[in-house]
Amino acid sequence: MRKVEEREISQAVIRRLPRYYRYLGELLESGVERISSNDLSKRMKVTASQIRQDLNNFGGFGQQGYGYNVKYLYTEIGKILGLENDHNFVIIGAGNLGQALANYSNFENRGFVLKGIFDANPTLKGMSIRNVPVRMMDELNDFIRANDVEIAVLTIPKSVAIEVAKDLVDAGIKAIWNFAHVDLNVPDNVIVENVHLIESLMRLSYNISRYNEEHKLDK
Amino acid sequence: MRKVEEREISQAVIRRLPRYYRYLGELLESGVERISSNDLSKRMKVTASQIRQDLNNFGGFGQQGYGYNVKYLYTEIGKILGLENDHNFVIIGAGNLGQALANYSNFENRGFVLKGIFDANPTLKGMSIRNVPVRMMDELNDFIRANDVEIAVLTIPKSVAIEVAKDLVDAGIKAIWNFAHVDLNVPDNVIVENVHLIESLMRLSYNISRYNEEHKLDK
Repeated sequence: MRKVEEREISQAVIRRLPRYYRYLGELLESGVERISSNDLSKRMKVTASQIRQDLNNFGGFGQQGYGYNVKYLYTEIGKILGLENDHNFVIIGAGNLGQALANYSNFENRGFVLKGIFDANPTLKGMSIRNVPVRMMDELNDFIRANDVEIAVLTIPKSVAIEVAKDLVDAGIKAIWNFAHVDLNVPDNVIVENVHLIESLMRLSYNISRYNEEHKLDK
Repeated sequence: MRKVEEREISQAVIRRLPRYYRYLGELLESGVERISSNDLSKRMKVTASQIRQDLNNFGGFGQQGYGYNVKYLYTEIGKILGLENDHNFVIIGAGNLGQALANYSNFENRGFVLKGIFDANPTLKGMSIRNVPVRMMDELNDFIRANDVEIAVLTIPKSVAIEVAKDLVDAGIKAIWNFAHVDLNVPDNVIVENVHLIESLMRLSYNISRYNEEHKLDK
């Protein structure tokens, strides 16, 4: 069995992994110890062959006639997703979205630990969310270095996001979870994961139009 | 030139369209009237051949030696994305995330019009966000029918999301923008666009691990 790190896994498979992780977690919670690719297929509404193909990327998790060991598979996928270690993060932008993310206890359950919240607005100074105080931007650089912060969450307007991203890179951040609707220009060693909500809404609107057109053509 | 509606466009292209739309919108704002696929390629950091291939899906927008007419292309992509018509939506769940989305004026600029906000918590009754009052869930069905609501945004816990989705389907909703971390079980004629934030964060964490591993192997 080859080690996972030695293999290149396609981004398409990576996109699907968290969903496997979720279903396996739910199976674990309901006390299911093993599951066949067929049963998992029915639950997840993907083909059994897709499941086998995806999970084969990580070596021989399944056994003929036995199926998958749920706990083992859940743990291994968790390791692949980097969830066996905690990840410290800060939120930059204490507006509604920043506050919403700060309040998600679900992140903490997965090992994402909120260390700090930052904003440029001095009227927010002194405010706390879940006991994490809102700090001013001039403290950001030192704070990241002192608190082993790996991830910065950007919930600020796009007009300032590029500038702040530069500061984050200078401070040695490893990854940016970017909610600002702009492409950040960062070196290759800084990971960016974009959440462009308006683009998601446009895909939804595309699919409504598409459905309406098809429905019209059917008549 | 075939009509757009008659062609099947791959989901991969659809995923990229909003990004084209954004860049073209920014070009328009800065007064650029036409652009070559090469120049667009440099800005967007995708290959020129990818751009030509993607945009060819929608018929002959580009002209040899002239490039793309920015306004025309922007308008056409907007039509394809279903943005030439307004879309009424409601938000279900007036917590932090629901409030954040209700406050996004950017959605309205793109023709997504917030008609109502709903919550199960009676203490929120009487609260308003941008002049839109929070209503109780027992009004939901009638409200959707009376206000030509196409889209419901679900910002409620996963424990209740499946049940609420059923009610939405009964009320004749066309599409659900789902922020609850669960797969909704709806008929094929209801469009679902999922935003699973924790899964996005897991992909980011995967990429950090991956980078760390590669970096270790380099030494």
